[in-house]
Amino acid sequence: MWKSRLFTPGPTAVPDEVLLEMARPLIHHRTPQFRKLLKEAFEGLKYVFQTGQDVMILTSSGTGAMEAAVANLLSPGDHCLVVEGGKFGERFRELAQAYGAAVKTIPVEWGRSVSAGAIEAALKSDPAVKVVFTTLCETSTGAHLDLKAIGAAVRQHPETLLVVDAISSLGAVECRMDEWGVDALISASQKAFMLPPGLAFIALSPKAWKAVEAARSPRYYFDLSAYRQTLAKEDTPYTPALTLVIGLVRVLRMMKEEGLENVWRRHRILAEATREAMRALGLKLLAEHPSDGLTAVLLPEGLDAEAMVKALRDQSGITFAGGQGKLKGRIFRIAHMGWVDGFEVLEAIAAVEIQLARLGYGLTPGAGVAAAEKVLLSAGG
Amino acid sequence: MWKSRLFTPGPTAVPDEVLLEMARPLIHHRTPQFRKLLKEAFEGLKYVFQTGQDVMILTSSGTGAMEAAVANLLSPGDHCLVVEGGKFGERFRELAQAYGAAVKTIPVEWGRSVSAGAIEAALKSDPAVKVVFTTLCETSTGAHLDLKAIGAAVRQHPETLLVVDAISSLGAVECRMDEWGVDALISASQKAFMLPPGLAFIALSPKAWKAVEAARSPRYYFDLSAYRQTLAKEDTPYTPALTLVIGLVRVLRMMKEEGLENVWRRHRILAEATREAMRALGLKLLAEHPSDGLTAVLLPEGLDAEAMVKALRDQSGITFAGGQGKLKGRIFRIAHMGWVDGFEVLEAIAAVEIQLARLGYGLTPGAGVAAAEKVLLSAGG
Repeated sequence: MWKSRLFTPGPTAVPDEVLLEMARPLIHHRTPQFRKLLKEAFEGLKYVFQTGQDVMILTSSGTGAMEAAVANLLSPGDHCLVVEGGKFGERFRELAQAYGAAVKTIPVEWGRSVSAGAIEAALKSDPAVKVVFTTLCETSTGAHLDLKAIGAAVRQHPETLLVVDAISSLGAVECRMDEWGVDALISASQKAFMLPPGLAFIALSPKAWKAVEAARSPRYYFDLSAYRQTLAKEDTPYTPALTLVIGLVRVLRMMKEEGLENVWRRHRILAEATREAMRALGLKLLAEHPSDGLTAVLLPEGLDAEAMVKALRDQSGITFAGGQGKLKGRIFRIAHMGWVDGFEVLEAIAAVEIQLARLGYGLTPGAGVAAAEKVLLSAGG
Repeated sequence: MWKSRLFTPGPTAVPDEVLLEMARPLIHHRTPQFRKLLKEAFEGLKYVFQTGQDVMILTSSGTGAMEAAVANLLSPGDHCLVVEGGKFGERFRELAQAYGAAVKTIPVEWGRSVSAGAIEAALKSDPAVKVVFTTLCETSTGAHLDLKAIGAAVRQHPETLLVVDAISSLGAVECRMDEWGVDALISASQKAFMLPPGLAFIALSPKAWKAVEAARSPRYYFDLSAYRQTLAKEDTPYTPALTLVIGLVRVLRMMKEEGLENVWRRHRILAEATREAMRALGLKLLAEHPSDGLTAVLLPEGLDAEAMVKALRDQSGITFAGGQGKLKGRIFRIAHMGWVDGFEVLEAIAAVEIQLARLGYGLTPGAGVAAAEKVLLSAGG
């Protein structure tokens, strides 16, 4: 008998009390009862986004909010710049192309992170770039950006907007929308927000709202102006996934109670414990600058990461994620974001040790767990 | 102490066992465990849609699937015809306009239903019409269409597609996609499907799939070709609202077990009971051809339907819907779709009697309930 444990970078585990809250009998969304909850959700999201701007709730996967950014900010033929260092950078490129934008990419080796300097140089070479699309944590590689520096670089170009996919990082790592100069910040429910998938979130800066007025791409369900107008009345333009909104209110209360800086700190400690454990086992991390939300681990030649993920899931109830696209079979990814504590991270590390031992990989049993315990201990956790 | 009872045309009540099933710990969507469920959901949807075609599951409100129909079937400048007899006909018009189509409307008085003849005449006067957009049940008025006759009329025009919003009717009333010649059939989770909002469903005919190839409107999240491709591998292109998909599997099993014709029959009986009760209370129905999913009731002059809905909700825990748009204050709507049985309909009718008595409206207490009981009895229910 093995219990099921989910260590994937979306969906992530949802607290039992939130699952049960969402299992209560349905209510109608156009009632004072629901409007009150919606108002609390809108306020709580501002805190997690670190913004004074409205945060809109869409019923869609995170990709829907990415499309909303593209369709509301760009017109056909507009120049834009996409940082492409993994599957989700690719998605921004595909989206911008679908809407007829003139797309330039900054190709980044999967696992590496773009520098502010590279973005700066690209903007200098094409001053017509209207939007820069970046990914705060590239979920496919676990690579993290220095968003503060990138924000400062883009801010030098008053006509250019900075759009950030923070789907697998908001609520896991430090991210300050207003202070860092982000013009569109995007996230989704099923990562550090500790909810099932189905909701996406997006906030725009005043500068981005001006661009919305000028953008001529067709849009309706993702027309952000409609969300902004109804938001002022504690409403949504279309029937929202209201059980998830009810859960959102609960998790936002939890995040507020823990304190956002403490949430970030917890993720930093869990990530550091995981990374130290992998190093102690002789494994390499894929990302040059790893995110605190997930750790992508390279397996040595001859070991198949897909088979390892499958065996752990089917034999021990532990679900990690494998690699996507060109990394399939080469890496596995351990998420430690959202509703996760130190002991669960130790379980994940023990699972890696056990599976590697099964595969005959030479390791000192317990070495990974020991390294992680050391990190947890010294963090006082 | 009053229990909460939801009689709104979306969201509707969700069976307890489905709520609890959706409250189980999260699983990952790219696992054999979830693929098996997704496969069952795809098969079950075909049964409810009465189609041999693929039914795609979108994570969005029903409006998202309406937009998918527009964006996948039309190019800018294409001629289309919208039947506009309420808020959801309006929505199709707005959507087609947002995508730059040349839109003609057949205006229908709110509460009336378009005839197949009127559509036939409009198609004759403009043979370039590529798509006809209709609403099987106009949720804002409770008006039902003779879709079989309309399908037969549109089928005379081999270049024209028939798109049907069946959001508040599929699973409540008879609807046979393939047999009746529907080219795009749309529904959503929070109506007769007995689920919370968050999922939308759409199926296309082979003729419609050909049109998808030719349509040049920009689309990505709602690009139906991507859904069709992944569907073949028991997958979705983007992370689905998977707890709702898990619930969907459960409700589809329930619908299959009851038998779709029995489901339709149950709705017909409950609707007839509600209608007879309203007539017995001296109230008029708004719809000329009322849907079996909901009943829109006109209040006599001097009685404010908004105030009645609010009082019932706040004083007795019974939630009906009021009127939308131009019907605000004039009607209230009782939904009897999805997870509803005869005794609950009697509760709803008793609530109307009690509230009308509170307002001083002259009625014979119990007359509505008696009329409904008679219908239930003669139906053997």
